[in-house]
Amino acid sequence: MKRSFLDINTDSHFPIQNLPYGIFSNGSASKRVGVAIGSFVLDLSSLEAEGVLHTNFFQSATLNNFIEAGTASWAAVRNRVTDLLSFDTAELRDNEALRTAVLIPQNSVTMHLPVSIGDYTDFYSSREHATNVGTMFRDPDNALLPNWLHLPVAYHGRASSVVVSGTPIRRPFGQTKADTAEEPVFGPTRLLDFELEMGCIIGKPNKLGEPVSVDRAHEHIFGMVLVNDWSARDIQKWEYVPLGPFLAKSFATSISPWVVPLAALEPFRVAGPRQEPLPLPYLQSQSDWAFDINLAVQLQTPAMQEATQIAASNYKYMYWNVCQQIAHHSSNGCNLQVGDLLASGTISGSTPDSYGSLLELTWRGSKPIVLPGGETRTFLEDGDILSLTGFAEAEQYRIGFGSVTGTILPAYNEELV
Amino acid sequence: MKRSFLDINTDSHFPIQNLPYGIFSNGSASKRVGVAIGSFVLDLSSLEAEGVLHTNFFQSATLNNFIEAGTASWAAVRNRVTDLLSFDTAELRDNEALRTAVLIPQNSVTMHLPVSIGDYTDFYSSREHATNVGTMFRDPDNALLPNWLHLPVAYHGRASSVVVSGTPIRRPFGQTKADTAEEPVFGPTRLLDFELEMGCIIGKPNKLGEPVSVDRAHEHIFGMVLVNDWSARDIQKWEYVPLGPFLAKSFATSISPWVVPLAALEPFRVAGPRQEPLPLPYLQSQSDWAFDINLAVQLQTPAMQEATQIAASNYKYMYWNVCQQIAHHSSNGCNLQVGDLLASGTISGSTPDSYGSLLELTWRGSKPIVLPGGETRTFLEDGDILSLTGFAEAEQYRIGFGSVTGTILPAYNEELV
Repeated sequence: MKRSFLDINTDSHFPIQNLPYGIFSNGSASKRVGVAIGSFVLDLSSLEAEGVLHTNFFQSATLNNFIEAGTASWAAVRNRVTDLLSFDTAELRDNEALRTAVLIPQNSVTMHLPVSIGDYTDFYSSREHATNVGTMFRDPDNALLPNWLHLPVAYHGRASSVVVSGTPIRRPFGQTKADTAEEPVFGPTRLLDFELEMGCIIGKPNKLGEPVSVDRAHEHIFGMVLVNDWSARDIQKWEYVPLGPFLAKSFATSISPWVVPLAALEPFRVAGPRQEPLPLPYLQSQSDWAFDINLAVQLQTPAMQEATQIAASNYKYMYWNVCQQIAHHSSNGCNLQVGDLLASGTISGSTPDSYGSLLELTWRGSKPIVLPGGETRTFLEDGDILSLTGFAEAEQYRIGFGSVTGTILPAYNEELV
Repeated sequence: MKRSFLDINTDSHFPIQNLPYGIFSNGSASKRVGVAIGSFVLDLSSLEAEGVLHTNFFQSATLNNFIEAGTASWAAVRNRVTDLLSFDTAELRDNEALRTAVLIPQNSVTMHLPVSIGDYTDFYSSREHATNVGTMFRDPDNALLPNWLHLPVAYHGRASSVVVSGTPIRRPFGQTKADTAEEPVFGPTRLLDFELEMGCIIGKPNKLGEPVSVDRAHEHIFGMVLVNDWSARDIQKWEYVPLGPFLAKSFATSISPWVVPLAALEPFRVAGPRQEPLPLPYLQSQSDWAFDINLAVQLQTPAMQEATQIAASNYKYMYWNVCQQIAHHSSNGCNLQVGDLLASGTISGSTPDSYGSLLELTWRGSKPIVLPGGETRTFLEDGDILSLTGFAEAEQYRIGFGSVTGTILPAYNEELV
């Protein structure tokens, strides 16, 4: 097994087999591209400036230039970086000055949004999640709507409010109406929730009017991130008919800072759930495009000394896989562009401890979560810190995504109402 | 009344009172910013290069740099261009070489998408349209859903597929299911429609987490365009529950090439429809923000020698005005950015000849339109040319938007199914 000259724990998210890309800065230096390795960031822009990498897209505030360079460039950079970090390669290992210059401790850098996201699409592809929501809000006997098993339902999200992990999340104002009330009211949401999702970053565009076939969809994927699709359930309930979620979602969506390349996830491809009825031909994958990625949700309230896990799920539970999502999204000719974010939708498993939202975990607030120390939660309160984390596990290493974290801030305090 | 040294008909869309901005190119020259005046484009990038304009944002492929320069720059440029084109100013009028260099016939240029659109939002703000749709698809006695009179319903649209007028529109494939069918099928839409809309281009951003009040919302508007939100009704009907329209819309949205600045539309502000019940305070406009803008829809089939008008409406019919839309959109802290497009939703009037879509004009296909020559149409067929046009009318001039046009192409012909 390949190993690095750096000493990396077996439970690290960032072994030499991973090499995810992100945008970082430190001190007064500008934003630039780095790769996570162990507890360090490898500064690709410095390697470029030193002539170690013969590229010209890493002194950049987003990954878009690199992604646009295409698959051959991705493979060449990944091979070269793997070689540079390898135990068997002297070039960086034995050059202390270069090592000091290009390997920067992760705890001394600031991470930024990794890509400029043109469009953000959010799917709804977990059967368990859709069934839970349908059971709670519609009809337990017909929880899935008629179209659900035939196509990966999705809606367009808001790209401007996609933020990087660590960005505080301000509790949104909005219109809500209690079932018993005559009229709606305007005020801070009382049902602030997270959604455990993963997202795919588009790496290769298709032209407007030209669909991507399901069997070539993987060629359009650059990599994957964790996504928290923050949701205000009371705003959502009042606004969402008939055109779908809008302000209940668009106040913020958080993503993890490191984009894990598809190449690092290849060993973790597995079959997804059996699809019955068989999808229409344009949605039939000829190979396995689910991924075995362990996911967990952690919550820390202001009263707690450390975070506690409140749910665990797995990306492989998704009914519709990412290639089916891309094929469906482009089936009408819609043009996907480099940097677009396609999120999976909430990833829930079949057991109550694997649900990917507080809506489901507390069953619409009826079963509060009891936290260590005795506090309870139905939805998120000001000061709460919510983190999603995830990794794929091989025998001797993990391909990790780090985490995506947000702290809840009180609602905007200017006079609005 | 101010007039230009150019000879401009009183029914021209582009008198000196208008001065809309667009992006054009001609010959091998690159994309740049121009202003429409009569039948000419005034080349602002050449005026900049000649030192006539002391600016540095017109040699640009989008208006975004200019818009980002802010309201003081918009006013200064508008004043200077008005002066340069004025009958009373010799500077351009008497300089034949300069006139020839900077005044280019509109029929010799190619127009391009005027702005880089970060996010596109589509509202649903015509009471008549929402009532018609609710009557057809839900319940004539409760056509408006409970939230409709309380908030401007909207959904996030797809920004990547917003195209400039003249771009051909390829008939999209999609999943549809007939009411009588057991299973859905995949094929070209059979119910291709237009939607007559107007759109606002955001000129001033708000920070994430900081709402824009309804009384300051106008400060965030740069200008307005015509919008055709092409729609595939059969795809929409099958996909839209519960998360709203997705592929039924995202194959294409067309906008007019000229962005009419808010300053040119000031004289046409009027009161909108009375709002009952009174909106919540955050949506109460203190002044009139409807606009009296005549709108018309024209159709030309391959068998017709010229286009015929099939509907006429007015932007002033909108129940929710653009300032209320901006206040609502940002009320949850969602950040609007320079270049964002906020479309009005289909603008229908109260009479059947004022409906803004074929869905309504043909009442779901049950009342075909009879065209000159005897052809009929329920929905759009391949080769049809659909144009929207609009202008505000003063006593001696019109502030026009030109048109937004699209020709329907047959569905993509590669084997997909």
